[in-house]
Amino acid sequence: MVFRASAGITSSWEHFDFSVADGVATVKFSRPDKLNALTFDVYADLRDLITELPHRGDARVLVITGEGRGFCSGGDVEEIIGELQKMEPAQLLEFTRMTGAVVKALRECPLPVIAAVNGIAAGAGSVIALASDFRLLASSASFAFLFTKVGLAGADMGSAYLLPRLVGLGRATELLLLGDKVDASTALGIGLATKVVEDSALADETSALATRLASGPALAYSTTKVLLTRELDMDLGSSIELEAITQALLMKSEDHAEFYAAWTAGRKPRWTGR
Amino acid sequence: MVFRASAGITSSWEHFDFSVADGVATVKFSRPDKLNALTFDVYADLRDLITELPHRGDARVLVITGEGRGFCSGGDVEEIIGELQKMEPAQLLEFTRMTGAVVKALRECPLPVIAAVNGIAAGAGSVIALASDFRLLASSASFAFLFTKVGLAGADMGSAYLLPRLVGLGRATELLLLGDKVDASTALGIGLATKVVEDSALADETSALATRLASGPALAYSTTKVLLTRELDMDLGSSIELEAITQALLMKSEDHAEFYAAWTAGRKPRWTGR
Amino acid sequence: MVFRASAGITSSWEHFDFSVADGVATVKFSRPDKLNALTFDVYADLRDLITELPHRGDARVLVITGEGRGFCSGGDVEEIIGELQKMEPAQLLEFTRMTGAVVKALRECPLPVIAAVNGIAAGAGSVIALASDFRLLASSASFAFLFTKVGLAGADMGSAYLLPRLVGLGRATELLLLGDKVDASTALGIGLATKVVEDSALADETSALATRLASGPALAYSTTKVLLTRELDMDLGSSIELEAITQALLMKSEDHAEFYAAWTAGRKPRWTGR
Repeated sequence: MVFRASAGITSSWEHFDFSVADGVATVKFSRPDKLNALTFDVYADLRDLITELPHRGDARVLVITGEGRGFCSGGDVEEIIGELQKMEPAQLLEFTRMTGAVVKALRECPLPVIAAVNGIAAGAGSVIALASDFRLLASSASFAFLFTKVGLAGADMGSAYLLPRLVGLGRATELLLLGDKVDASTALGIGLATKVVEDSALADETSALATRLASGPALAYSTTKVLLTRELDMDLGSSIELEAITQALLMKSEDHAEFYAAWTAGRKPRWTGR
Repeated sequence: MVFRASAGITSSWEHFDFSVADGVATVKFSRPDKLNALTFDVYADLRDLITELPHRGDARVLVITGEGRGFCSGGDVEEIIGELQKMEPAQLLEFTRMTGAVVKALRECPLPVIAAVNGIAAGAGSVIALASDFRLLASSASFAFLFTKVGLAGADMGSAYLLPRLVGLGRATELLLLGDKVDASTALGIGLATKVVEDSALADETSALATRLASGPALAYSTTKVLLTRELDMDLGSSIELEAITQALLMKSEDHAEFYAAWTAGRKPRWTGR
Repeated sequence: MVFRASAGITSSWEHFDFSVADGVATVKFSRPDKLNALTFDVYADLRDLITELPHRGDARVLVITGEGRGFCSGGDVEEIIGELQKMEPAQLLEFTRMTGAVVKALRECPLPVIAAVNGIAAGAGSVIALASDFRLLASSASFAFLFTKVGLAGADMGSAYLLPRLVGLGRATELLLLGDKVDASTALGIGLATKVVEDSALADETSALATRLASGPALAYSTTKVLLTRELDMDLGSSIELEAITQALLMKSEDHAEFYAAWTAGRKPRWTGR
């Protein structure tokens, strides 16, 4: 079921590679010579794509990755930082709101999002990975929340909200204030990486997880993700009530009935996502 | 001091083994042939027992454990999932609210709760352990938040509220979306287990911790637990004020005076819990 | 820029050693024969110093440490606990509010705070370290949230708010209810310590970190710390908006312009903190 409005869907995304196959949508940052540094256009495309994605009707999971040696090195120093120097407050705020909107869209997106971190994830690149649901890291990948190193706040695009909720306030303080590099095994140890794999295995691991999510019970995955996002901001009693109502709805779903039918028949369930 | 109303206390709990000795109340799930799968009756008994427990007057700590190889495998597929297939929305919501009420009661219970996880804790069983204050795991024990595997939301009975607050959002997302098994040592590493002990040592370790809690300063333990629950939902300033008021009250307690008297006399304190 | 009111700044702090050099303010607890146990006077001085510190104009970072074998063993049993026995509720509440005000001031202080934990940090001493931004531990240092051992609530000075946000609810429950000692390597493993170093290296490590923070982009550090504190109590959308507005302001700062100028010229930035 897709509710699509007058605008339809965007026919072409110009500022990164985009494809959908077998329910798996993939964004691949495609400026490998710049370690996939972001431009204003990439931010704008990300903001709109993530919002539009659930309405396309063909995607059940989003993978974000980078071409070449880097995942995403953050805002391009010349094309973004250089331009910001010339801007007035109102324009700067338009820009920072746009970057924040990308993270808000990622967290509120009803599809699970996998960041396949193939190399350095720095600045805005680290926050995009942070706002994803799964972070699969190549063993040579790393994070660097390097904002203070360019004279900016380590609180950027929601990083000071998200990072303490993943790794705890103590570790988040260290990472955001100092902005130092975090290697893959450290990231795994503190709960910032979901899994670390050999560089050569990243594509296959990503594909396996994406396929699993795309072929599974989509409504179950989707409600789980959305409630994880929402309940960070809710109290115990309200969260339990929200889960009670959500689960009662899911108990009327085809997928739950299919589980029971399959179990009774001794076969594997065939999920439809309904 | 016990404030008891007209109903008195329940004379017999029929759907699990229940006993109280030396201040330690113990619930033992007793359907070992089904890995202690839950029935509607077990949920209802849990909901009411945990609410009633502090008014009994004879219990200072609650231990929850399972008979046989499993801790609790969650809702019974035939006796619960099978029946849910036939229910209308209003009935389903009554059921999911009852299960949520068990977790709310566990978190709000003024007594410390120890889950002695002797084997698999799956589905609702994993959330009951999650909502306890201490999780002592046998080395062969494991968790499985397997809700999505039956086509339901991984957010069940407050799991999407609690799990991120124990292990961080990243790890919680992985565990709740995928529903895979978590072994004891992994659970320890991420902060989901309090301690892992040899299978043969679980009963003794549980008894030692329960005895320590039952014979210690009960008001100090009780207020600590209740404030931990409440302050997850409070801001910094309000939390500090709540702790200031609570601690001022405790400074008037017999146990605090007893500490000082014992310290002055060079002896061990004799706690009364008042 | 310093906004200073009629009172000016306090000329002498009598209840601990205090010094400022090269932007680094240092509080050194100075009752080594008592493992730096706190007195009413030390609390009052801490409360006022931390509030006044940002208005002095000469400090960019605060270091808190202890003289001798201990960091701070908490409230002195004779000079505090003994006196509390004689107090009425209103006085007790004045005291507990004063201790809470120290933690509130530490968390809201716009300067980064380093606890250089040179030995045991117990009771109130452990919470002062907990409320700091960085915890550098000597390898012989330890924590003990020992409140229940004196018959008081483990929730003291905001500990039941802060600790779960650093180490997760499960571990915080264990540490606050039981009050047992936590050695340095355990503290590091659970995210309670920022770093553990040899005892003999603590002074140098602390100095290196303090110097780095004092000579770096002060506004960037300061806003990062303040937003980390605030966003623990904010929702996702509001946090992202706060970060967007903050970052737009920082993009107008001299330090951000200096970064770009330095980068363009191929030299290191010279931070002014403006």
